[in-house]
Amino acid sequence: MCEANAYLIEENDEKLVMEAVDTIEPEGDGLILNNIFGEQKLLKARIHSLSLVDHKIYLKEK
Amino acid sequence: MCEANAYLIEENDEKLVMEAVDTIEPEGDGLILNNIFGEQKLLKARIHSLSLVDHKIYLKEK
Repeated sequence: MCEANAYLIEENDEKLVMEAVDTIEPEGDGLILNNIFGEQKLLKARIHSLSLVDHKIYLKEK
Repeated sequence: MCEANAYLIEENDEKLVMEAVDTIEPEGDGLILNNIFGEQKLLKARIHSLSLVDHKIYLKEK
């Protein structure tokens, strides 16, 4: 499976917000994250960068 | 490997812009895409959405 973990970039740090993310879709002024376990999370953030071979998605708060 | 293909969303259509993308990083008001073959592309776009199990990254022009 090729899902990735989503991290929220904070000042000089990153916080894991969801593991095994499959889809991210825009929703209002934020994002809806869905993972392969059927969990869903709504975040007021945007997609900052990706490093897929490392299974990492970086988000930044809006 | 868990890379994905990057598509640019156009009106009712999507155009493949790069295969086997590993990293996407912000650069100026655009994005730099790097794939697993060492190719690099600079696009004036933002990351719109992801569908990683389907190996798809959707970009939208700025």
